[in-house]
Amino acid sequence: MLPFARVTIIGLGLIGSSIARAVQATMPTVRVTGHDADAGVRDRARALGFADDITDTPGAAVIDADLVILCVPVGAMGAVGESIAADLPADAIVSDVGSSKASVLAALSAALPGATIIPAHPVAGTENSGPEAGFATLFSGRWCIVTPPEGADETAVARVEAFWKRLGANVERMDAKHHDLVLAVTSHLPHLIAYTIVGTASDMEEVTQSEVIKYSAGGFRDFTRIAASDPTMWRDVFLSNKDAVLEMLQRFSEDLTALQRAIRWGDGDALFELFSRTRDVRRNIIEQGQDDAAPDFGRSH
Amino acid sequence: MLPFARVTIIGLGLIGSSIARAVQATMPTVRVTGHDADAGVRDRARALGFADDITDTPGAAVIDADLVILCVPVGAMGAVGESIAADLPADAIVSDVGSSKASVLAALSAALPGATIIPAHPVAGTENSGPEAGFATLFSGRWCIVTPPEGADETAVARVEAFWKRLGANVERMDAKHHDLVLAVTSHLPHLIAYTIVGTASDMEEVTQSEVIKYSAGGFRDFTRIAASDPTMWRDVFLSNKDAVLEMLQRFSEDLTALQRAIRWGDGDALFELFSRTRDVRRNIIEQGQDDAAPDFGRSH
Repeated sequence: MLPFARVTIIGLGLIGSSIARAVQATMPTVRVTGHDADAGVRDRARALGFADDITDTPGAAVIDADLVILCVPVGAMGAVGESIAADLPADAIVSDVGSSKASVLAALSAALPGATIIPAHPVAGTENSGPEAGFATLFSGRWCIVTPPEGADETAVARVEAFWKRLGANVERMDAKHHDLVLAVTSHLPHLIAYTIVGTASDMEEVTQSEVIKYSAGGFRDFTRIAASDPTMWRDVFLSNKDAVLEMLQRFSEDLTALQRAIRWGDGDALFELFSRTRDVRRNIIEQGQDDAAPDFGRSH
Repeated sequence: MLPFARVTIIGLGLIGSSIARAVQATMPTVRVTGHDADAGVRDRARALGFADDITDTPGAAVIDADLVILCVPVGAMGAVGESIAADLPADAIVSDVGSSKASVLAALSAALPGATIIPAHPVAGTENSGPEAGFATLFSGRWCIVTPPEGADETAVARVEAFWKRLGANVERMDAKHHDLVLAVTSHLPHLIAYTIVGTASDMEEVTQSEVIKYSAGGFRDFTRIAASDPTMWRDVFLSNKDAVLEMLQRFSEDLTALQRAIRWGDGDALFELFSRTRDVRRNIIEQGQDDAAPDFGRSH
């Protein structure tokens, strides 16, 4: 049984266009409608053909939807919610794919009073953006975290979960506040640090930019991938999940200071101890299918 | 013309065994002799067959070599140098593959007075260790930095450079001190930060280890790869390149503090500005062939 018959996607970038393609691939009878605020993106989406219809206004996109998924930067959720409020069918479920969940729930609840809102976050992506970057298998084997508000209708939650399972994702249910803490460690802090180190390396005087690029295979290039992610999306994530991000950043800085001190005082044992236990984390991630076992991410050599 | 006829490799881990395999593949008439301090590694190396001979002592390995490459942790260079001093032919060139160069040159000069020492550093590797992890194409298209001491014999330097070119590497000549600064940014700092964040994430109380692993595709998993690198090798790198690493760490911490402040005060423009300019660095690295253009490092989806 199909969880939804008419799915509307607002925001046709990497995630939105991947959902559309995944629906086409896994539930071909489902009608997919899309809208994007950018007319150029709408044209490209029409040419790519991953939706049955691309509408010029958000209202027209939702008018007969039974699931509406907002795939826009988290800072835009409130405004997009308001833009569909007048046309949203009473029985439609509104969901999203934002990387922070408490702020999104608050924004959507304010913009769409009385609507059934079931936020979700597929933990998947690449460093690329835009409708061309999406692909149908992006969510396959990845986790999608569903964060229903307190008192949410169980049937509605189950339908959203069933939808994501059909797209190939594993589904986990979580409290929005806990989600924001977990993702602050596993996603937001890593992005913040990657952006920082790429910035630091770009601002050197003694080492040229050309040298940084030439010798990046020593480790630096790994960080440049996530530091190439969408700037608007990530600006909004950090501003919307401020408390959890600052808390994680504080812990990270303390740990870094301890390592700095170990290096300054030549405490090789402290370094060795840390470097030994971090190996196991990688092994566990590979065992649980969350990364390739191939060395160097399977890069070609 | 072959730059060397008899190459000896001391230390048969990822890099040493890759050099041996690359020599077999690109200069099949060159005789490769290997030695490793670990008897178990010697047995495995014999079974793998990437050298013509594996000797039980370092002295026996160098006795007729015209190039000796030390592929051991940088902290062990001095002791290994001493262990071959008595048997090293007068006309042999001694090189290495260490990730810090000033300290290695000092250690080898002290251990091998009068020997021709031409240090080098192939900027290549994977997170795996041991003789099984090596492969012949590891250096293909990567840079090898040669750091000859002042007054080094030009013919000897040219032969070492020709050797690395034969293995597929691009070669650059650099002053040891400048090398150590460049690598502190492009390799040592990234490793230190990756080790730190993986440690921070492992020590959380509110977020379980299982959650960190499940949701690692949000960015964290990228860091676990280099944090799975060899602990002994990296302990030695940080201790031997202390000044440059501490200098880079200081800059990074300042930049991170500035971002922390921007998040705390909700300065979205500052975040957006940084996140926009870091994208170009990734593009440059790909254009210069130092990383795969495929999204997500070409991971399978």
